[in-house]
Amino acid sequence: MVRWKPDARGRLAQAALELYGERGYEQTTVAEIAKRAGLTERTFFRHYADKREVLFSGAGELEELFVGAVAGAPQSAAPVDAVALGLDAVAGMFADRREFAGKRHAVITAHTDLMERELTKLASLSAALADTLRHRGVGEPAASLAAEVGVAVFKIAFERWIVHGEERTLRDLVRDSLAELKAVASGDRTHG
Amino acid sequence: MVRWKPDARGRLAQAALELYGERGYEQTTVAEIAKRAGLTERTFFRHYADKREVLFSGAGELEELFVGAVAGAPQSAAPVDAVALGLDAVAGMFADRREFAGKRHAVITAHTDLMERELTKLASLSAALADTLRHRGVGEPAASLAAEVGVAVFKIAFERWIVHGEERTLRDLVRDSLAELKAVASGDRTHG
Repeated sequence: MVRWKPDARGRLAQAALELYGERGYEQTTVAEIAKRAGLTERTFFRHYADKREVLFSGAGELEELFVGAVAGAPQSAAPVDAVALGLDAVAGMFADRREFAGKRHAVITAHTDLMERELTKLASLSAALADTLRHRGVGEPAASLAAEVGVAVFKIAFERWIVHGEERTLRDLVRDSLAELKAVASGDRTHG
Repeated sequence: MVRWKPDARGRLAQAALELYGERGYEQTTVAEIAKRAGLTERTFFRHYADKREVLFSGAGELEELFVGAVAGAPQSAAPVDAVALGLDAVAGMFADRREFAGKRHAVITAHTDLMERELTKLASLSAALADTLRHRGVGEPAASLAAEVGVAVFKIAFERWIVHGEERTLRDLVRDSLAELKAVASGDRTHG
């Protein structure tokens, strides 16, 4: 597996997450983050507007990858299969960022305002996916439902992935969760 | 259909929504809301902590009804069928509140902070539903997936229902959206 080699932006993000974990999010300053990363505050602000932004800097990339893969799915693909291609693409993006993702998740779930922001980002991702599906000719409410399913599968697979001791890859968990979703929707009782 | 006969609490909510629509949410004061409802500010504060709270006062009732119906489903019911009973129960709760619901939705979608709060309430509803399903013996990730599906179906049916000119009931739209969800999950292309 290719390891994620952080540039200045990535080093700042890693330093920030370390400090949020060690000292708490509120107690950490931008000056401390920059120092830990071996960079200046000025460099920090070239990459992030504030210490909150560090936690959401991946949202744009995630949405771009997800939407791009759905848009690029074969025209014959059913909505859920186009969404599955998107899920696969984003699972790949996270492959070597598991530790970072786990630390990030811990900070976010501990702070109501960060959690609200996270939910807003996911809602915006869902809206973008629905829009992409409509452009592919999918009607409503199928487009919105497929988009919501995609985001729900991603969220649930992600939360399973960062649990300590979980050894499957995010890609495997995404596929497994999508298969479970299909079983749940069809009224399968074997999971009850 | 039994019309919703508002008590003091309901009258304050209706007055608030009227004023939010007429003057804007920010420009409306509690004093004005109380006056429009023919009540005192003191009465307002007996029912709501602030003017924001008016918009979210139904969330507790919604969650209680939804969770109660899922918990009370026959033990043999598949997760998605238990969730369907919950959806049916909450659709009934809204039956005679369509105008109120539409006005509320317009105010909420126009304000980022209200939208964040709405998303947080829906996430909490989903968590409560997953918890209820786990208590029924449903494993993970099936419980969380069924819960997310239930909330997504509710949200999407609700947004269809409040569109001007829509004549179907929320209950019909919820059933229709759930059927569409099943079609989408199974990879049905006829909706593409």
